[in-house]
Amino acid sequence: MAGRTNTPGQTVSRRLLSVLDCFDVAHPALSLTEVATRSRLPVSTARRLIGELCAWGGLERLDDGRYRVGMRLWTIGSLAPRQRGLREAALPFMHDLFQATQENIQLTVLEGTHALCIDKISSSKAVPTMTHIGGRLPLHATGVGKAILAFSDKELLRSVADAGLARMTPHTITQPGRLAAALAEVRKTGVAYCYEEMTLGAVSVAAPVLGMDGKVRAALGIVAHSRAAVDRLAPAVRAAALGIARWTG
Amino acid sequence: MAGRTNTPGQTVSRRLLSVLDCFDVAHPALSLTEVATRSRLPVSTARRLIGELCAWGGLERLDDGRYRVGMRLWTIGSLAPRQRGLREAALPFMHDLFQATQENIQLTVLEGTHALCIDKISSSKAVPTMTHIGGRLPLHATGVGKAILAFSDKELLRSVADAGLARMTPHTITQPGRLAAALAEVRKTGVAYCYEEMTLGAVSVAAPVLGMDGKVRAALGIVAHSRAAVDRLAPAVRAAALGIARWTG
Repeated sequence: MAGRTNTPGQTVSRRLLSVLDCFDVAHPALSLTEVATRSRLPVSTARRLIGELCAWGGLERLDDGRYRVGMRLWTIGSLAPRQRGLREAALPFMHDLFQATQENIQLTVLEGTHALCIDKISSSKAVPTMTHIGGRLPLHATGVGKAILAFSDKELLRSVADAGLARMTPHTITQPGRLAAALAEVRKTGVAYCYEEMTLGAVSVAAPVLGMDGKVRAALGIVAHSRAAVDRLAPAVRAAALGIARWTG
Repeated sequence: MAGRTNTPGQTVSRRLLSVLDCFDVAHPALSLTEVATRSRLPVSTARRLIGELCAWGGLERLDDGRYRVGMRLWTIGSLAPRQRGLREAALPFMHDLFQATQENIQLTVLEGTHALCIDKISSSKAVPTMTHIGGRLPLHATGVGKAILAFSDKELLRSVADAGLARMTPHTITQPGRLAAALAEVRKTGVAYCYEEMTLGAVSVAAPVLGMDGKVRAALGIVAHSRAAVDRLAPAVRAAALGIARWTG
């Protein structure tokens, strides 16, 4: 993208927001040049906007000259009510699941065509995952993703399939027809499994949190070591997801 | 503040950020007029900036016409590394404390002259508190606040005292001399108590999480029903805070 500059008619506000858009889980710290490249802004513009964001507290300068997201943005972001109510309702159930299993517990919501992790509980004993709070997971290759996909409009599945079902491991479902069949099974049983389709050595089971209107609000999942473990945990995950739905409903 | 408009020389970026600044724990949803009043922007300007923030996903429009913080800001805010690393290190210790006590567990950091709650664990059995994640607590009237204050520079105590020690309950320490004496005791014992100084019926005990440089990075606290409970829990809180410090150090 280097060398291209932003649309000339773009507003100053939009440019400022495009600086924030440069940062994500894969890029939590960026240099001025990286921000300019990723936002397609001239370096001078990027420098000025970064300066304003630092003065406000939205970005912080690191000792090595790079920038990262600051506390001000964290504080404002924590006001987002969709996560807030859901997380507060879900936390006791997530704790119970964690206490009973000592495995990774994940709470996700749909964002665009990904599952966004809004909370997780883990321990050093649990199977390592690359999931961070605020991180995105593919819908077709994770338990939580399939739980969301199975209970969403057909258009979402079409968008996901059109974008291409990326192969994460040899076990990833990459054919739309096979994925649709798997989702039909999820709708029937109320739980979604993922057998090493995202990460080798990690299996997961998840259940949707449905609203009063029948729409999927979130998905709760457990990531564990073995197929036997998730088979055994499926009823617990489903019960916890139903409990969360009742509290948030 | 109504009727006053923003500094004319203020940049567009600063105006956009001042719209975001309108939202806090006490004001999670605001109307256009309220945003204009709180940001001291003309209504037409506020409307345009809100529109840009909505299009970006930083704000969302509610059915009643008000606005609240959206998922985009939550996602970017979750990248703030100060909370991120601290929270990940603290969570297992917070879980253990919660499991052992079933009381409110709070993790806070210093922000300006307040303690900012960056995580909490609670249950329906625990004593009700008004603390929300992202919410601010007074330093002089809470266990976590005193733990931070006791291990911070003297300038912070002076700033807090100069701002006035607000009386939250009849038990709040409102004299700077008495507060300084209480903090000296906190430094000696390593734990800070708060006996109904913030909320009647709620007592707390907290311990600082100190960095390798001896500076206070955070405070971990338990809020419980009775004085006997917090006296008994003090060693557990202190041990957990030391454990978090070792992990983050």
